[in-house]
Amino acid sequence: MNVIFINPFLEAVVHVFKTMAFTDPKPGEPFLKKRPELSQGDVTAVLGLTGSVKGSVAVSFTEAAILQTVANMFGEPVNEISSEVEDAVGELCNMICGDARRALESQGYHLQAAIPTVINGKGHRISHSVPGPTLVMPFTIDSDATFFVEVCFESDQT
Amino acid sequence: MNVIFINPFLEAVVHVFKTMAFTDPKPGEPFLKKRPELSQGDVTAVLGLTGSVKGSVAVSFTEAAILQTVANMFGEPVNEISSEVEDAVGELCNMICGDARRALESQGYHLQAAIPTVINGKGHRISHSVPGPTLVMPFTIDSDATFFVEVCFESDQT
Repeated sequence: MNVIFINPFLEAVVHVFKTMAFTDPKPGEPFLKKRPELSQGDVTAVLGLTGSVKGSVAVSFTEAAILQTVANMFGEPVNEISSEVEDAVGELCNMICGDARRALESQGYHLQAAIPTVINGKGHRISHSVPGPTLVMPFTIDSDATFFVEVCFESDQT
Repeated sequence: MNVIFINPFLEAVVHVFKTMAFTDPKPGEPFLKKRPELSQGDVTAVLGLTGSVKGSVAVSFTEAAILQTVANMFGEPVNEISSEVEDAVGELCNMICGDARRALESQGYHLQAAIPTVINGKGHRISHSVPGPTLVMPFTIDSDATFFVEVCFESDQT
């Protein structure tokens, strides 16, 4: 995968979390996903991208990470992954992709976003049905509060 | 949601399952999804669509349904949701959307598909982050082998 795709998403995550959830997630070392080493989460938003390149982006949270994030967004404690929390996960994914798309636009990549789909279920795993590599960016909020941003584009184009 | 979107997906599912998995899934009554009445599955492929309308499509299988389907596709018994099974779920979703897109093309809707993302995890639930309605089409292969096709498009365009 072209490294040109890494920074826009990394910066978008940090920016969106700072402005929306008043948190400063610490990025870990990005890695290329290899099966069966899949990242795993409890609630995930998936967003498809088309245009100059075809891809998909997943933002996958542990329960601890999303409850802490939405408590900050809502300004009150949140104890379960309700439909409001699911909506917030979809919206965070939307905003991250929106920020990244704008940054990529200035580099000549024109991308259209589909509608986010949110998956809620303890410990699910995600894979992207494409021959190309998937880049995983891990982030930590607290010691047990982690989330992953996965970015996957068709390899023949990137 | 405009009813124009129902039949192309319904017909695509029946056609793809007939030609790829040599099965004849029985369509149930389509319904509009209302939270918290969410359909639920053990493995799901999600595909984003952009173009004339923005949307997302999810194909969500119970474990029994997908193991039976891929056993037919592979020509041998399949006992677990392996990475090959995940790939087959993504590919089935791709083909269903491809068939439906071709049908919608003749009605003036030009849609681009993103990359399918596959989610594997017992009993997860799916929601689509859009104000518009989500149409759910249930299908049965055997008594305990069911799957759902969910189609969601932005309501202001459909």
